[in-house]
Amino acid sequence: MDLLIKDAHIVTGIKGNMYYGVGNIGIDAGKIAYIGPETMPAQKVIEARDMIAMPGLFNAHTHTSMVLMRNFAADKNLEDWLVKSIFPIEGKLTAEYIHSASLLAAAEMIRSGTVGFLDMYYHVEETAEAVLEAGLRANISLGILTAGNNDRNYEAAKSHALAFHRNYHGAGNGLVKTSLEVHSVYLYDEDGLRESAEFAKKHDLMVHAHLHETKTEVVNSIDKYGFRPIEVFKKCGMLEVPVTAAHCVNMNDRDMEIAASNGVRPVHCPTSNMYLASGFADIPSMQKHGIAVALGTDGAASNNDLDMFGEMNLAGLIHKGHSGDATVMDAASVVEMATANGAATIGFEDSGRLYEGMNADIILIDTNSAHNTPMLNPVNALVYSTKGSDVDTVIVNGRILMQSKELKTIDEEKLRYTIKKIADMLY
Amino acid sequence: MDLLIKDAHIVTGIKGNMYYGVGNIGIDAGKIAYIGPETMPAQKVIEARDMIAMPGLFNAHTHTSMVLMRNFAADKNLEDWLVKSIFPIEGKLTAEYIHSASLLAAAEMIRSGTVGFLDMYYHVEETAEAVLEAGLRANISLGILTAGNNDRNYEAAKSHALAFHRNYHGAGNGLVKTSLEVHSVYLYDEDGLRESAEFAKKHDLMVHAHLHETKTEVVNSIDKYGFRPIEVFKKCGMLEVPVTAAHCVNMNDRDMEIAASNGVRPVHCPTSNMYLASGFADIPSMQKHGIAVALGTDGAASNNDLDMFGEMNLAGLIHKGHSGDATVMDAASVVEMATANGAATIGFEDSGRLYEGMNADIILIDTNSAHNTPMLNPVNALVYSTKGSDVDTVIVNGRILMQSKELKTIDEEKLRYTIKKIADMLY
Repeated sequence: MDLLIKDAHIVTGIKGNMYYGVGNIGIDAGKIAYIGPETMPAQKVIEARDMIAMPGLFNAHTHTSMVLMRNFAADKNLEDWLVKSIFPIEGKLTAEYIHSASLLAAAEMIRSGTVGFLDMYYHVEETAEAVLEAGLRANISLGILTAGNNDRNYEAAKSHALAFHRNYHGAGNGLVKTSLEVHSVYLYDEDGLRESAEFAKKHDLMVHAHLHETKTEVVNSIDKYGFRPIEVFKKCGMLEVPVTAAHCVNMNDRDMEIAASNGVRPVHCPTSNMYLASGFADIPSMQKHGIAVALGTDGAASNNDLDMFGEMNLAGLIHKGHSGDATVMDAASVVEMATANGAATIGFEDSGRLYEGMNADIILIDTNSAHNTPMLNPVNALVYSTKGSDVDTVIVNGRILMQSKELKTIDEEKLRYTIKKIADMLY
Repeated sequence: MDLLIKDAHIVTGIKGNMYYGVGNIGIDAGKIAYIGPETMPAQKVIEARDMIAMPGLFNAHTHTSMVLMRNFAADKNLEDWLVKSIFPIEGKLTAEYIHSASLLAAAEMIRSGTVGFLDMYYHVEETAEAVLEAGLRANISLGILTAGNNDRNYEAAKSHALAFHRNYHGAGNGLVKTSLEVHSVYLYDEDGLRESAEFAKKHDLMVHAHLHETKTEVVNSIDKYGFRPIEVFKKCGMLEVPVTAAHCVNMNDRDMEIAASNGVRPVHCPTSNMYLASGFADIPSMQKHGIAVALGTDGAASNNDLDMFGEMNLAGLIHKGHSGDATVMDAASVVEMATANGAATIGFEDSGRLYEGMNADIILIDTNSAHNTPMLNPVNALVYSTKGSDVDTVIVNGRILMQSKELKTIDEEKLRYTIKKIADMLY
């Protein structure tokens, strides 16, 4: 074995069998080769007594480089926030800034146990290169018609998207994947949506979209197209490819039926949906429709961090408060959203669960803290009392990215200095 | 000066003037003796560049020793949770267990920046002694008629309460205060409530109660007394003394008017109210009524930690989602709830704000982290991206209880071992 993790509380990521008990995990050639009571010779051994070993978390919707706008605009409604605060800063972003911001986001994600993410932003090549430097997994989206492409130059955008896809899909031994950004029904028109759907089908790309985020989006969609956003997607052929749909806050029963029968994968972003007053996505109803929901932070500008333990805590709490039923969103469901569902949603089907043959994407959580003593139930603890700062070790594809809270692939101090200088230039 | 804190970002706790800028804080004889740009000789200097100095947090409603039931019962409705899970364990608690549990809770609170709390539980003397050992502030409540006192032996209970009050009110140079527990309208009857109100008036005690926590409580109160809970309190004379009222979830406009005109101090417990599916207290409306709301974790059994940074984050987010207005509960309001409002609510009027003459109850927060870079707005950062684990230093009454994340008054490792042994005996 390359690596042996000894005596950990093993949480599997698999709903019906979430807690395995205390055991050992053997890792070989980037895969989980063994889980069980036995011990065996290994090049490296990690003593994990009093630690929880679990699948690394997947952040299924973010705009990583928005860390540059962290805490800049708070307590504002969406239009004010976006138009008056965010757009003016975004106009100043360069490729160089995006590279540093992506690395900072990677450091933050590793520290809080995230091993993979689905991204949508500018200068996508820079984010892909930062991901390869950091050793994380990511699926990075690029569209053929962004808000900026007002001259409808589909051909140039398609060439760019294809080149990006050719260069980065599968890069780093499969750490990086690519997908098609279809921002939303409100930034595109029917023509652009149909072009996007055709392009995705032709090149076998997953689509990454914002869908049903706000009431306004739904109302305007009915005005503009005569249909609700998910119906517009269906009508334009978008649902013939896999679609990852961020937010899904304002969905009625019929919207959920369409999502379920077309394999649409919603991404619940609880912090962002509250921060911008969009509301509470009805995840318990989606679960009843048999939809596997993933979890995401959205960009740091509407969060203001990238901590998936924070999102798990919110996912476990807010729907109980909103529905008046404390039995909804049990802890195991929430862990599944952040692990197995997240990995599958963003195209890493061999990650997100701990069993033999899966990718060795594993995090170790130190439970020797006042706030996790006594440890009566590891699965409940992950959702209701564990913090991102409890993550001790992060392993992706069998490679150690952090051990004893020390980052192995990123010079964080230097990076923080660079980011402070960038912030001085931006603000 | 006894102590000089240098070059900190100073957050005052005072709403209209929440961020002071970078400056120095001089501490002498347990009080803040200076805030400003000057430097001066001091026995001890803390270099606080890139740190936020702010008032220590006040947890205005908790049952500290419920840390022994942390993560034991999750995803259950209140009746199931309380009767089937919590009561059977509470029946086994001894004075010795409560002492250790109170110390563990103190360690967790210090680590996450809490300097004072309002407590309601059993074996109150043990909690008071633990608070004195830890060096925290606490107001500890004891009632004259608990659910267990079915024989209505008011006189014995009054003697106990008076002895506790005499022995502990003002103990430790004012670190410990005492108050009267009036658990709720549902555990007492009108006779018990009137006795309690008389006792509080006679001995000048603040009352600590659960009020309007659930719909069921309100409905049952109308059935039992013909009035809503806060009306019952008013009728029984309870509002003639200061009342701290935990939860206040199910309050209508008239309830809020009664609270406002009688100086009732609500304590918002967002995690607990969601965890047990009680709902969302309408804090924005209370603010419009001019009510100063404090913040609390409730007991760890319904949270499952004592982290006030988590509560601040929730207080900043959930009301935006619930009301559909992102401008409610701005970051400065939330910080004020956890600092100035919390301190005043639980009887420590000279804490909770940073200005000359106030108690030196100060915490320092390390912002040199990926998740707080760049630091564009310290007040927003405290609510939306800062974690309890970012607290570096805790000072209470001028005494350092933690520095560089090292606890000075509690042997945490030994305590965690003790608590694990207690848990083995309880479960």
